[in-house]
Formats: sequence, C-alpha cells, structure tokens
Amino acid sequence: MRLKLIPREEKFFDLFEQQAENVVLGAKLIKELFDDYREVEQAAMKMSRIEHEGDEIAHQIAEKVSLTFITPIDREDIHALASALDDILDFINATVVRLDLYKVSSVRDDAHRMTNIIVLAAEETLELVRELQNYKKHGVIKKRWVEIHRLENEGDTVVRAAIAKLFEQGQDPIEVIKWKEIYEHLETAIDKCEDAANIIEQVVLKNA
Amino acid sequence: MRLKLIPREEKFFDLFEQQAENVVLGAKLIKELFDDYREVEQAAMKMSRIEHEGDEIAHQIAEKVSLTFITPIDREDIHALASALDDILDFINATVVRLDLYKVSSVRDDAHRMTNIIVLAAEETLELVRELQNYKKHGVIKKRWVEIHRLENEGDTVVRAAIAKLFEQGQDPIEVIKWKEIYEHLETAIDKCEDAANIIEQVVLKNA
Amino acid sequence: MRLKLIPREEKFFDLFEQQAENVVLGAKLIKELFDDYREVEQAAMKMSRIEHEGDEIAHQIAEKVSLTFITPIDREDIHALASALDDILDFINATVVRLDLYKVSSVRDDAHRMTNIIVLAAEETLELVRELQNYKKHGVIKKRWVEIHRLENEGDTVVRAAIAKLFEQGQDPIEVIKWKEIYEHLETAIDKCEDAANIIEQVVLKNA
Repeated sequence: MRLKLIPREEKFFDLFEQQAENVVLGAKLIKELFDDYREVEQAAMKMSRIEHEGDEIAHQIAEKVSLTFITPIDREDIHALASALDDILDFINATVVRLDLYKVSSVRDDAHRMTNIIVLAAEETLELVRELQNYKKHGVIKKRWVEIHRLENEGDTVVRAAIAKLFEQGQDPIEVIKWKEIYEHLETAIDKCEDAANIIEQVVLKNA
Repeated sequence: MRLKLIPREEKFFDLFEQQAENVVLGAKLIKELFDDYREVEQAAMKMSRIEHEGDEIAHQIAEKVSLTFITPIDREDIHALASALDDILDFINATVVRLDLYKVSSVRDDAHRMTNIIVLAAEETLELVRELQNYKKHGVIKKRWVEIHRLENEGDTVVRAAIAKLFEQGQDPIEVIKWKEIYEHLETAIDKCEDAANIIEQVVLKNA
Repeated sequence: MRLKLIPREEKFFDLFEQQAENVVLGAKLIKELFDDYREVEQAAMKMSRIEHEGDEIAHQIAEKVSLTFITPIDREDIHALASALDDILDFINATVVRLDLYKVSSVRDDAHRMTNIIVLAAEETLELVRELQNYKKHGVIKKRWVEIHRLENEGDTVVRAAIAKLFEQGQDPIEVIKWKEIYEHLETAIDKCEDAANIIEQVVLKNA
C-alpha cells in the first residue's frame, strides 16, 4: 500500500517542476521580444500557448490535490505555490498582450532591465522548485531565496525610476497609461517569483 | 442527532442559491441599464441595494461556517465559492458606480456585448450552484462549466478588441481612463463567474 | 508540558499587537505628511522603514505558525489577519512612494479627510487586536467592529466624491492618473482595516 503512495508524491514535484520550467520559457520569450522588438503579434500567440500550457498544469495539480488523500506537502501550500507560479506567467502574458493591443511601436530602455531581471528570477524559482524535495539542504534553498529577494528589490528600484521618468518627461498621457501598466505588470511578475520563493521557504522550514 | 445536521447542510446550499440568484439580478440590472442608458444614479442606488444584500448573504455563510462543526463541503471551498460569488456582484456594482461618478453620458457599443455575456455567465453560474448538491450528475456540471469557459473566452476577445479600439481612435485620454476601467471591471465580473465554476467543478470532483 | 504551550500562545497575540501598533505609526506618519506637506522624500524613507518592520513581524508570525503544533486560533485565521494588517501598511506605503515618484507638489483637500479616517481606522484596528484575547467581551468587539464599518463607509463616500471632482474639473489627464491612484490606495488601506476587523469578529465568534 505504501508503494502506491510514493509515485503519487513524486508526481506533485514533477508537476511543479514542469510548471516552473514553463515559467522560464515564458520569461525567456518576453526577454527575447524586448531585445529584438519585432513580430509582436506572433510573440503574443506563442506566449498565449505557453500560458495555456501553464493553466493545464495548474489544473492537473488542483485535480491531483482533490484526489490524493495524503499529500507530500500541505494542501494549502500546494495550492499557494501552484497559483504563485501560474500568476508569474499570467503577468508575463498580460504584458505581451498589452504590447500587441496598445500597438506599442518600440520598447523603452528601462523595460529591458526588467525583462533581464524576470529571466534571472524565473531561473532561481525553477531551481528552488527543484530543491523542494531536498528538505535537508536548507542552506542551498536559503541562498536562492535571498537571491530572489535581491532581484525583487532591484526590479522595484528599476520600475520606480522608470515610472518617475515616465511622469517627469511630460509625456503624452496615452503613453503614460500604456507604459505605467506595462511596467507594473513586469514588476508584479517578479513579485510573484518572490511569493513562490517565500512559500517554498516556509514549506522547507515546516518539514525540516 | 443525525437529523439535526441535515437541515444545516441544506441551509448552506440554500444560501449559495440565494447568493447566485442575487448575482443574476445584478447582471440583469447592468444589462438593462446599458440597453436603455438613462437614470444612471437611480440604477446605481438599486445596484447598491443588491450588492448590500449580497454582502449580507456572504456574511451569513461565513457565520454559518464558523458555527457548524461538520460542513457538507470543505470549509475552504465554502469560503472560496462565497467570495467568488460576492466578487461578481462587487465588480458589476463597481462598474455602475463608475458610470455615475465619471458622468459617462453614453455607453460604447462593445460594452453592450459584455453585459450580454455577463447575464449568460451569471445564469450558468446559478445553474451550477443549483447542481452543486447533485454530485452524481457530473455530466451536467461539466457541460455548464465548459459553457462558462466559452463565455469567459468570448468576453476576453470582446474586451481586448474594445480596448484596442479605445487606444486606436486617438481618443481623449480622460475617455481612455474611464472606459479602460469600465471594460476591465466587466471582464473581471465574467472572470469571477469562471472562478465560481472552477470551484464547483473541484468540489464535485472531490465528492464524486 | 502544558506550561510550555502557554508562552507560545501569548507570543502570537504579542506579535499581532506589535504589527497593529506599527500600522498606527504608519497611519500617523501619512496624516502628518498630508497635514504639513514638505520633505516628501524623507517621509518616504521613514515610511519604508515602518513597512520593512511590518514585513519582519509578518515573517515572524508566519514562521511561528509553521513551527507551532497547536495554535491559539486557527492557522488560516492567523495568516489572514497577519496579511490584512500587512496590507494596510503596504497601501499606506505605496501612497507615500507615489507622492514622491510622481513629484506631487501639493495635496488635494479631499486627501486630508482620507488620512484622518485612516488614523481612526488604524486605532480601532489596534484596539480590536488587543481585544482578540478576550473572547468573552464580545460586546466591546462588536462596537469597535461597527465603528470600523462606519469609517470604511465614510472613506468610501469621501473617495467617490473626490474622484468625481477629479473628473469633473476638466483636469490635466496626468493629474487624473496620479490622484485617482492615490485616492484608490488610501481607500484600499481603509478597506484592509475593515478586512482585519472582519477576521477578528469571525475568530471571536468561533471561539465564543
């Protein structure tokens, strides 16, 4: 009987890893789009597929929680982590959708710095998710968790300066509306990486 | 002793049904206002009453959860469903409030399409809530759940086109600010119907 | 063995009290800044320290929940209350940050009325948190809870009138963007006091 439970437990970690890998895919896609700003509509379609894939994995995790009697980590933590990872992609996707909808013709310099940070934060998040099974290696997890906090602070500083600049330059109000929202979405995507890291840190602490 | 529990259980489902019926009332009110755009302030007062009624029912549900030892469905699902239903009304109400506050003098065509979808999604949500007690009829629930997802996708497409048009037409920035928010609120109201449907689907799956 | 549990239980209430005292500090700081609108950057730095202190206490509460086997009130309620208190400060802080970022040169009259309400709501919240340990005194708690609802309604009325005025006066769109966000943040800070009060009321009800 015990044996039947073990593969189930591993399955949760596999699904989380898939979900985090998908987040890295989305983060790289938006960085590449910002680095070489062309074919926005095509990028939006690709991003939409990645986001649907993410929804699919999140749905599988929710289904698995409902059907599993004993979960390897607390049910509420599984939900919270799945939804934080899902949110990262939602905000990356929402940003790309807006570039397309608002017919943004070129990207502002500060935005490049944000997408660089998003890729780094997504990669740290993936590594943290991979470490989730190794409760013992608390030192490794702590180091990555500190790094995500550092990246979140850096993103915060970059986005604040970017928004201040947006208002200072006496811009066209329509540009302000568009870019304020784009910056805030990019910032939220990074915040959600930090949320995921916080959940993982608490889970590890609880099971140490 | 068993008998004392049964009426309590039914009471939860009754309260959810009342809450979902109230959502349909709110959805119809906003559709009627958009179809015949007059007397905004009066509609806002009516809508405010419906929203307060919704708060009252949500509060009753929360109180009942606190006082009931064994709930017919999981406590967390009761909270999540009550709050999703409450949110639908909050966003419909917030939209009507803004029409009044922003002194919107006429409604844009795309908004009509949104309020039509909201009524359909609210009606499907009510039917799903009614089916909640019949765990066996998973087929019926699945069909309605698929329909709400279709409506949410349709709403998404409509609102994206509407917002793109808003920015394309070189509108007055103040108009953009007002209508962007109105569209986004209508979209969120539909999203919350989908959230409610997802929770019901998970509950049924768990208790199947 | 019993004795070891008691200090732990008290520690939760102490941490909540510290968190609520910190909220009052933040509320007073924003009121003082609005009453004597100078040195915004300096106020933003002070506010940032208060907010970090708040994060620190929230983190301690989360850690304590993870490590405590039997908590004095339900785990989910501890998380919900800690996060509502944390959110109050986040929105006060976000408002001060925006005054600085947007280079707001003077504050609008309606905003003064909002910061007065925030201080009152924060003080009621602190008193409610202090009463949390006295399950018996339900009457006292109910009175404070009613007062926070009254303040939230008042805040709602003030902010609606303020936003309506903002759009009526044919303002510069950039001013509308800035002040609409500032008003909405102030309103959300008050809403979060109401959320905290609702959680406390439910906890007391459950444990009565």
